[in-house]
Amino acid sequence: MHTVVQAREGVARGGRGPAARVAVAGATGYTGQELLRLLARHPAVTITAAMSSGARSTTSAAPRRLPALAHIFSGVITPLDADALARDADLVFLALPDRAAAELAPALVAAGVRVIDLSGAFRLRDREVRARWYPETHELPEGLAYGLTELERTAIEAARLVANPGCYPTATILPLAPLAAAGLLAPNADIIVDAKSGVSGAGKTPSERTHFSEVHGSVSAYGVFGHRHGAEIEQGVGRIVNFVPHLMPLDRGILSTIYLRVAPGTTEDALASAYEQSYGDEPFVRLTGPALPEIKHVAHTNFCDIGWRVDASGRAVLVSVIDNLLKGASGQAVQNMNVMLGLDQTTGLL
Amino acid sequence: MHTVVQAREGVARGGRGPAARVAVAGATGYTGQELLRLLARHPAVTITAAMSSGARSTTSAAPRRLPALAHIFSGVITPLDADALARDADLVFLALPDRAAAELAPALVAAGVRVIDLSGAFRLRDREVRARWYPETHELPEGLAYGLTELERTAIEAARLVANPGCYPTATILPLAPLAAAGLLAPNADIIVDAKSGVSGAGKTPSERTHFSEVHGSVSAYGVFGHRHGAEIEQGVGRIVNFVPHLMPLDRGILSTIYLRVAPGTTEDALASAYEQSYGDEPFVRLTGPALPEIKHVAHTNFCDIGWRVDASGRAVLVSVIDNLLKGASGQAVQNMNVMLGLDQTTGLL
Amino acid sequence: MHTVVQAREGVARGGRGPAARVAVAGATGYTGQELLRLLARHPAVTITAAMSSGARSTTSAAPRRLPALAHIFSGVITPLDADALARDADLVFLALPDRAAAELAPALVAAGVRVIDLSGAFRLRDREVRARWYPETHELPEGLAYGLTELERTAIEAARLVANPGCYPTATILPLAPLAAAGLLAPNADIIVDAKSGVSGAGKTPSERTHFSEVHGSVSAYGVFGHRHGAEIEQGVGRIVNFVPHLMPLDRGILSTIYLRVAPGTTEDALASAYEQSYGDEPFVRLTGPALPEIKHVAHTNFCDIGWRVDASGRAVLVSVIDNLLKGASGQAVQNMNVMLGLDQTTGLL
Amino acid sequence: MHTVVQAREGVARGGRGPAARVAVAGATGYTGQELLRLLARHPAVTITAAMSSGARSTTSAAPRRLPALAHIFSGVITPLDADALARDADLVFLALPDRAAAELAPALVAAGVRVIDLSGAFRLRDREVRARWYPETHELPEGLAYGLTELERTAIEAARLVANPGCYPTATILPLAPLAAAGLLAPNADIIVDAKSGVSGAGKTPSERTHFSEVHGSVSAYGVFGHRHGAEIEQGVGRIVNFVPHLMPLDRGILSTIYLRVAPGTTEDALASAYEQSYGDEPFVRLTGPALPEIKHVAHTNFCDIGWRVDASGRAVLVSVIDNLLKGASGQAVQNMNVMLGLDQTTGLL
Repeated sequence: MHTVVQAREGVARGGRGPAARVAVAGATGYTGQELLRLLARHPAVTITAAMSSGARSTTSAAPRRLPALAHIFSGVITPLDADALARDADLVFLALPDRAAAELAPALVAAGVRVIDLSGAFRLRDREVRARWYPETHELPEGLAYGLTELERTAIEAARLVANPGCYPTATILPLAPLAAAGLLAPNADIIVDAKSGVSGAGKTPSERTHFSEVHGSVSAYGVFGHRHGAEIEQGVGRIVNFVPHLMPLDRGILSTIYLRVAPGTTEDALASAYEQSYGDEPFVRLTGPALPEIKHVAHTNFCDIGWRVDASGRAVLVSVIDNLLKGASGQAVQNMNVMLGLDQTTGLL
Repeated sequence: MHTVVQAREGVARGGRGPAARVAVAGATGYTGQELLRLLARHPAVTITAAMSSGARSTTSAAPRRLPALAHIFSGVITPLDADALARDADLVFLALPDRAAAELAPALVAAGVRVIDLSGAFRLRDREVRARWYPETHELPEGLAYGLTELERTAIEAARLVANPGCYPTATILPLAPLAAAGLLAPNADIIVDAKSGVSGAGKTPSERTHFSEVHGSVSAYGVFGHRHGAEIEQGVGRIVNFVPHLMPLDRGILSTIYLRVAPGTTEDALASAYEQSYGDEPFVRLTGPALPEIKHVAHTNFCDIGWRVDASGRAVLVSVIDNLLKGASGQAVQNMNVMLGLDQTTGLL
Repeated sequence: MHTVVQAREGVARGGRGPAARVAVAGATGYTGQELLRLLARHPAVTITAAMSSGARSTTSAAPRRLPALAHIFSGVITPLDADALARDADLVFLALPDRAAAELAPALVAAGVRVIDLSGAFRLRDREVRARWYPETHELPEGLAYGLTELERTAIEAARLVANPGCYPTATILPLAPLAAAGLLAPNADIIVDAKSGVSGAGKTPSERTHFSEVHGSVSAYGVFGHRHGAEIEQGVGRIVNFVPHLMPLDRGILSTIYLRVAPGTTEDALASAYEQSYGDEPFVRLTGPALPEIKHVAHTNFCDIGWRVDASGRAVLVSVIDNLLKGASGQAVQNMNVMLGLDQTTGLL
Repeated sequence: MHTVVQAREGVARGGRGPAARVAVAGATGYTGQELLRLLARHPAVTITAAMSSGARSTTSAAPRRLPALAHIFSGVITPLDADALARDADLVFLALPDRAAAELAPALVAAGVRVIDLSGAFRLRDREVRARWYPETHELPEGLAYGLTELERTAIEAARLVANPGCYPTATILPLAPLAAAGLLAPNADIIVDAKSGVSGAGKTPSERTHFSEVHGSVSAYGVFGHRHGAEIEQGVGRIVNFVPHLMPLDRGILSTIYLRVAPGTTEDALASAYEQSYGDEPFVRLTGPALPEIKHVAHTNFCDIGWRVDASGRAVLVSVIDNLLKGASGQAVQNMNVMLGLDQTTGLL
């Protein structure tokens, strides 16, 4: 108990005390493994638990390890145990299904543990909208912040529960929000978001949709007029958007192509100014202007690259790219942890 | 000389005479090889020449053959020779760069040979628009047809020169034209075409853009507000479109996602009726309705699959897919040849 | 009943009577779909049934169709029904799991139906070896042939049951058998078969091993010292081989690299002669000599391309490539059907 | 001049003085960019120059930057300048063609600069063998070490010029050398190395061989009986090997499958002991035993994973995997730099 108090003080003191004790619940999925990889080399934290609900089912007595993490993370994967999380960690990452996160997060917060939830359970503020997409989430706890770091940093610093954004919303709100805030969007014109994602965004559970032979050499649209990330984007932008995700034959990365009309008289330079003002000092947002970014520039990094073009008739095309497992999930989660712990937000991420 | 006349009569008699003599100029590129593969097994034609401008440069005395076509096409690749084309073929496929086609096609037509040109040289009717994108094309010859088979069949039957459509325009005009013709498009709303293509559409010449390591694991947009296929689409639809192509990490295939607003009161069923009326009897257009099509369904076929969704607010999303080397190039060229020769249009293509 | 007899007579008369009635059991897997695609355009057969054990489980009353086969195969997928197969077909393709095929094939043969079995159930002649790899197969029926067409054509012509070879054995026995037969293999030296396969060879059932994100960007070896195709290769070559398959990030295709030592004094030309003698007239075997073949040359075809190199010290490297779904499964099955029906073996396959 | 001396003292003092000044010549290729990425975040070095021979040819006056390295490496790419390298750097990485490295490396060494050469120019010790594969290399300078870190650490510590190993040799010598040293290889049996590589190993220059459409969906063997990495492997193992590389449709990674016979009585456990003795303390070698490693476990890391299987008849199959741009090139180069500077060898690499 004593160490817990000490560690929490360390956390309270902005990480300048002993290493913060962190745990990962849901450690064997793609985002969970990525979290372990990042946290294992992070200089200011200690991983005190890596749990998986699947770990329960292994009949073998041998401890479960992940071959890709040998020599990186020496711990074993243990069964999910809420009490142990509350006892042994100052901050817990939940990389679990929505339903499990909806239950576990409030309990951990009530136990005094800070939580970063990578599920969708706590992302939507509007009760009715949330009831449609995340019916298993009943109440939003006190101290909740939406974890789009660049836009919500102050709230994240003090948060007890951070709802880590979805991958598509991260890639889409980052380029749209500064234009909305600066009044550069034409008021009544449609906003189209044609998003292209790699397969790791669909998670690790095998299915026909993620079978190699179904994806390789193919491209498909899905979720037209009905993807829950559309609601999250609309919440972030404050506008209706027509969001259509597509599955691409690659593993990691999202490219979001955004079509809109700008307010009369708005130029490419005006967009540049708005972006520069919002992100000029942000280490993880790179502005490329008319040289549009590509997924390969950001794969395996925590960057979001944003480019844009505007023509004389007021049509604009924005292109943004992220690695869906890093800036779109685990990387941004660690960035949020850094903010919560008072650390430089790039710690362990460059 | 006598056989030539006979053969031409055969052609004029709708292919019921001797096999038509056909030649391919530009036989070693991706579309050229695909043409040879299709024509070699075609029951109503004989390949009398397969030429390549590159064939000139080989210093070796050995005749040039294509390993992938062994046991399929037994002929050799010979240097480009306009006189031989005019002498030995009734119908010539040009799979050449725009400039070469702009020169060669009128000469062949003047010599009495029918031509199917897979370049862009003769696709745009408007002189000013054409001057921007294809400045090397001076005049449009008599007897020119635009080779989107399903929409221009009558013109193609009689044509002396068929401008085979671009791959993106094929995938985009086929879903849009019936809606425009039926008055189902909202008059002043934007039409967005977000197209995703495999790499073979960029041709066979090595470049940084087509380097495996630049494309694998990546996605990129290009040609924003300035791709010549945009002009071809606008010609085909009779409306301004915002066309943005993207390069995907796959070899063959295009998926075109089209965002538009329908005229007030237009339903998903109304689109179904319009499509059924236009394409209900077309062997190479498959209508999938709200079950959106995927590239893997059409790869290595001459099909164009079209799906659509309309929501209560009048937003519509159309998705169409083709194999860019078949329906988007060589397959449609053979389909056009079948029409020109009076054959069933599916001959050699199923 | 009358039509059945007629049709069987047609079959007996070498296909010159009415079209043979064929059925596919296991029509929704990758090999089953490929069979339907090939048979639907085959000029000498009629598909009388396409069955799937999975078809039973659909609760929907709507008939099940395959979107990729629209406009190609207009039939519906019906539940597996052995009686209907025996009644309505002259020849049945089994694209089923080993256990199901081991049961169904003898029953169909007993009912007078000819069978081409794509499972492994009847491939191994030696009882003990078979008991290890295919324990569910009890007896080998009369009239059984091993369906490596080029090597067993006479037996196949008369066969009542054809055991269609495995994909790896097809790619490996074809290059090795002529050398073994000609006495060109060094007697006691090791034979190493390092085979590389695309993912479709693993079948359509989703699993971690076939998850896109596990395969993309990766390569892995499996089945070392214990893959049942090793036993089939050893049966075909009459020598012990060290066979190690590898999973590659591609959909279709196998490349088999074979390392061996040739008998003293054997030259590259001697191999060429042996191959020429065995395969010089074979339409589906292409000999490339020292220009080693690549998977892309055979993808989507029924070819097996074979190349070879021999050095002065007697080391030889053979490289062969096939499309695992065509020459390695459904294409060779149709080739065998053509032989059984007395048709030209290339019918419907070029 | 004064700072240079100081910096060199810092280097001599094991990196505990001021940061070592390092430069990269050949900064725009795949290995060069990877070096910049690693060095930019390395805590003990400062990049004082990033040069490219290609930088000369840009006519634009704007300084050349690499978009993927924005916010990582803020420097510009300058033209190759040997004098500036000698003046401004304590240690230079050469990521240049063989010929350029063969000239530049001795000059830099003579000027007192330590050099890590990623080309093949100085890898082969035997004059005759070297004359065959690297004829542009005349003499081997004093103070040369072969940079396979785990096996040559002592020589590397003191070296003035480190010949960084080839990617295939790294993946192949690491698993073979401990067995050779322990006498576990059967004396006269063949050693077969079937290696599978991603495309980035072929470099960044566009060619037909690296065109996306030629590689995607394909696999090919090359360099049979004549790849210069075969000579490097034979030097490292002290045995003749039959090395055949294959090109795979992936970007980064090598999997080397090695077939050999072990000395009589040698068991799987004996191999485990030999490996444990050689690599038990090595941070970048992970031993997986009979659970064979896969490329995805090491992609984007500096690890070499090694697995092995031995059967009762003395046949052994070894499988090793690396990321060809990291452990196979730039990662190992930085590992060598760490050793040369007296740093922990994992600095900046985990």
